[in-house]
Amino acid sequence: MTSSDTLTTRRVGAQGNFIQLLKIWPLIFATDRSYYCRMAKGNTTRNRIVETALRAASVDGLEGITLGKVAADMGMSKSGLFAHFDSKEELQVDVLSAAAEKFTAVVVTPALSAPRGEPRLRALFARWLEWEQNESLPGGCVFMHAAAELDDRPGPARDALVDQQKRWMETLAKSVRLTIDAGHFRADIDPDLFAFQLFGIVLSYYHSARLFRDPLARPHALRSFEALVVAARP
Amino acid sequence: MTSSDTLTTRRVGAQGNFIQLLKIWPLIFATDRSYYCRMAKGNTTRNRIVETALRAASVDGLEGITLGKVAADMGMSKSGLFAHFDSKEELQVDVLSAAAEKFTAVVVTPALSAPRGEPRLRALFARWLEWEQNESLPGGCVFMHAAAELDDRPGPARDALVDQQKRWMETLAKSVRLTIDAGHFRADIDPDLFAFQLFGIVLSYYHSARLFRDPLARPHALRSFEALVVAARP
Repeated sequence: MTSSDTLTTRRVGAQGNFIQLLKIWPLIFATDRSYYCRMAKGNTTRNRIVETALRAASVDGLEGITLGKVAADMGMSKSGLFAHFDSKEELQVDVLSAAAEKFTAVVVTPALSAPRGEPRLRALFARWLEWEQNESLPGGCVFMHAAAELDDRPGPARDALVDQQKRWMETLAKSVRLTIDAGHFRADIDPDLFAFQLFGIVLSYYHSARLFRDPLARPHALRSFEALVVAARP
Repeated sequence: MTSSDTLTTRRVGAQGNFIQLLKIWPLIFATDRSYYCRMAKGNTTRNRIVETALRAASVDGLEGITLGKVAADMGMSKSGLFAHFDSKEELQVDVLSAAAEKFTAVVVTPALSAPRGEPRLRALFARWLEWEQNESLPGGCVFMHAAAELDDRPGPARDALVDQQKRWMETLAKSVRLTIDAGHFRADIDPDLFAFQLFGIVLSYYHSARLFRDPLARPHALRSFEALVVAARP
């Protein structure tokens, strides 16, 4: 997304933005409300631990987080860290929750400023594409890394990830439904299939950009999106 | 791919199959020829180690391979395993080579029996979709797991993976070019973009099937492929 796109989404359709945000908030944050309660208590050391672990997880994955290394990165003792987290798994779940909070702030909330229908879908896609370059993600999208790690590992971290990712798929599908309602897409478009296809474009973009360092990754993603949108119009 | 599809691809266009295979072989196997030389020497213990490590990598990733665990799984001592592999990194590269060999045998070679053009592209896609259910991959596609792990880790394992994955992208793009040459696709179709889009469908399928256990993952992938193919026809 260019800065002019960002300006456009900020200018247009600001009305109803706050109501939309309130509606979508529980979708994104239902996973682990306790995290946000802790935030409210101003438990900043715990937050700093999570932020440090998130950066590590972006590079090495959730399984690559070790309490010893996080403690060392923060210049604190391992026992000091254990005062905040009983287990690595507890930290993993909080890392995913913190990442979901960032994703909402960086991708979802600003896109809600765009008018319903194709402009909002466009804003969601553009910001999603940018997400893996977020400054707190030195190693790219933590969700995609976690998906590869956790798909066969039952437990709280997998449950949290599945919950978050499904809600994101539902948010995308809902946005497609609103685009149909606005008359921008044909009525026979399948919102769930469209969300599946959007996911594919972004996953292929991450793959080409991060693994191949392919300069065509972004142009390919944008052209794929245009083709999908144009084919869905009445 | 259904068994009837398999039969069809075996029946049709068998001529030129062996020549095609010879042509494509170096594309797939250029990464680590030494592995195949070792195979020829009948070093079966080494092969069994690689096979065991491949199964582990499918579940836990390449970084999840530990020489100690592989040795234990094989009922041999760690020092016995060290007689075959000097380092975990050497084993990782061989695991990727072994996976590439399987991929060629399961996906590429049988698809070459299909006639050039749309039928062959269709066969490649159908077999690629099945790949993550291969019996040696209890945790799904080892390449996708490795891609998430290695994208930020320079070294021989990353080099091997990038090389393999780029060659696979080139194979797909070449298959699209042949489809254009056969008159099945329009001349203005961009083969690299099409390969990028195919990659997206398969990545989204893996994501939906393995993480969400979504029964619609396969129908969505098949419908996405049809939409892409239909849009590319003259």
